[in-house]
Amino acid sequence: MKLRILAAAVSALSLAPIYSAAQELIQPIKPPAQINIGMVELGKKLYFDPRLSKSGFISCNSCHNLSMGGSDNLPSSIGDKWQQGPINSPTVLNSSLNVAQFWDGRAADLKEQAGGPIANPGEMGFTHTLAVGVLQSIPAYVRDFKQVFGTEKIDIDGVTTAIAEFEKTLVTPNSRFDQWLLGKKDALSTDEAAGYKLFKESGCVACHNGPAVGGASFQKMGVVEPYKAKTAAEGRFAVTGKDADRFNFKVPTLRNVEMTYPYFHDGAVDTLTEAVDIMGRLQLGKKYTPTENAQIVSFLKTLTGDQPNFAMPILPPSADKTPRPTPFK
Amino acid sequence: MKLRILAAAVSALSLAPIYSAAQELIQPIKPPAQINIGMVELGKKLYFDPRLSKSGFISCNSCHNLSMGGSDNLPSSIGDKWQQGPINSPTVLNSSLNVAQFWDGRAADLKEQAGGPIANPGEMGFTHTLAVGVLQSIPAYVRDFKQVFGTEKIDIDGVTTAIAEFEKTLVTPNSRFDQWLLGKKDALSTDEAAGYKLFKESGCVACHNGPAVGGASFQKMGVVEPYKAKTAAEGRFAVTGKDADRFNFKVPTLRNVEMTYPYFHDGAVDTLTEAVDIMGRLQLGKKYTPTENAQIVSFLKTLTGDQPNFAMPILPPSADKTPRPTPFK
Repeated sequence: MKLRILAAAVSALSLAPIYSAAQELIQPIKPPAQINIGMVELGKKLYFDPRLSKSGFISCNSCHNLSMGGSDNLPSSIGDKWQQGPINSPTVLNSSLNVAQFWDGRAADLKEQAGGPIANPGEMGFTHTLAVGVLQSIPAYVRDFKQVFGTEKIDIDGVTTAIAEFEKTLVTPNSRFDQWLLGKKDALSTDEAAGYKLFKESGCVACHNGPAVGGASFQKMGVVEPYKAKTAAEGRFAVTGKDADRFNFKVPTLRNVEMTYPYFHDGAVDTLTEAVDIMGRLQLGKKYTPTENAQIVSFLKTLTGDQPNFAMPILPPSADKTPRPTPFK
Repeated sequence: MKLRILAAAVSALSLAPIYSAAQELIQPIKPPAQINIGMVELGKKLYFDPRLSKSGFISCNSCHNLSMGGSDNLPSSIGDKWQQGPINSPTVLNSSLNVAQFWDGRAADLKEQAGGPIANPGEMGFTHTLAVGVLQSIPAYVRDFKQVFGTEKIDIDGVTTAIAEFEKTLVTPNSRFDQWLLGKKDALSTDEAAGYKLFKESGCVACHNGPAVGGASFQKMGVVEPYKAKTAAEGRFAVTGKDADRFNFKVPTLRNVEMTYPYFHDGAVDTLTEAVDIMGRLQLGKKYTPTENAQIVSFLKTLTGDQPNFAMPILPPSADKTPRPTPFK
């Protein structure tokens, strides 16, 4: 129903001869406001620190690699002892714009999400208590926590709060599409603009909307035709227990989608061409021509924004008393 | 014999009432000269690119992590499919100053070294041909290679040349000890200066000398007493086949040694205190008092220099035709 209303809205919009950002269902990405810089710097270190894992080898950045679109570009991630993850790792870029975190939305926000992988036996394989113990033993971290939180007592709440604060900075403004939305009408080529028109008129924008071009709702994967997934994940059903939520997944952001392959919750699809084709058929009952498909793909590539640009953090060394990682135990 | 001559030289030096850099057996680290910046930028991307591994998960930076002293801070590294490496990963920092690469010196230089892990089944688990094929399929890399090497044909020689050029920039000047060498006499505390005096007078400097405070020669691990290693590695013997080279290892650099734990070729020792104790007893037949040990450790911590400071590279996305990683096959 919601889909139909949005589709109608889209259809109406597409009749307008001139687009302006105010009329669009996609909005430009704004730089983050109200950021605590000291906390961001601490969170950045923690994000890159593999000592939050049992092995001392896996950090947040291992699976949400900021050199690679905030993802690992693998169908499913590699966890402690090379365990295969059950689902594709979504990008961390612009994840602050998501309605909730994880494909099934089981974490309300970035802070809640950040604690998950640390203690997941299949991911970082550690415990919150042990991770906090490692940090507490490192004098430079104790100083950082004292400065940021006013106490030398480190706890998981502070750890995840700082990581989330850093992640809030990981937005990617200034894509060519955003330049276009903001009035630079030559920012898109004819094909790219045609691709956007198709994206709107054929209904993609019904789910992929808002500043993140997605991330705002849970939708069924496989509306017109069922999606034959390579994982057993049942999406939102795992959180709500409602049958209606089976195979409902958070709509992924399409920001930087050129960099966040492979696609879908099972990471089964390598190319945008194939992803657009499948989405058209399964979600919209529409078979795009090769030209239409190429135009939509060319539009999607205009959604690549400014990537994170900061100096790699230098992590404080462990102290003599710091518990050591146990990658092979 | 060489050891004895050096020890005599050290002893003579230690009588001099005033030290100057010219008289020391350790020299300050100089910033690299003659660097090809375009090649460095390409090499930096390659250094961080896990697509040089079979799994798409392991990059040079995985085991030589520039956030962690150019090492992984593990006794031995984690390779493809979580294989346990046979030896401790040495730091990449200041490795351009080494007489040769790897603990056994089997690679003459950084360029030769860089090709090793890519094709090592226990490390990145790939082949040079496959790695080059991946890069060749990525248009932005082809452009980079064209710009840097004048040809769009990528080969492993170009790949390792660029990685080596990047690694040449990974020197760490400006440590407090270097400031002291360069004339800032209050750069060291009394204990740190006493530690350096002990380091020289008791003979450590016989092997740990030059700008890298090591890396200039192969020496036997266990001179006075045998070292009971946790690995079977036989060091230089593996390269020369000479019995005299058995358990001869490249003397590791002590630059940034506070950050490059655990210590020794088997990574068996977690703390500098223990490492100094073992080195004193096994290499010099000397049992340091707790005060002496603490002074030497405090000196060693003055060898931490400016860490690499650059923006994380953003890696060009794979193209539709790019072969995909196979982490679980």
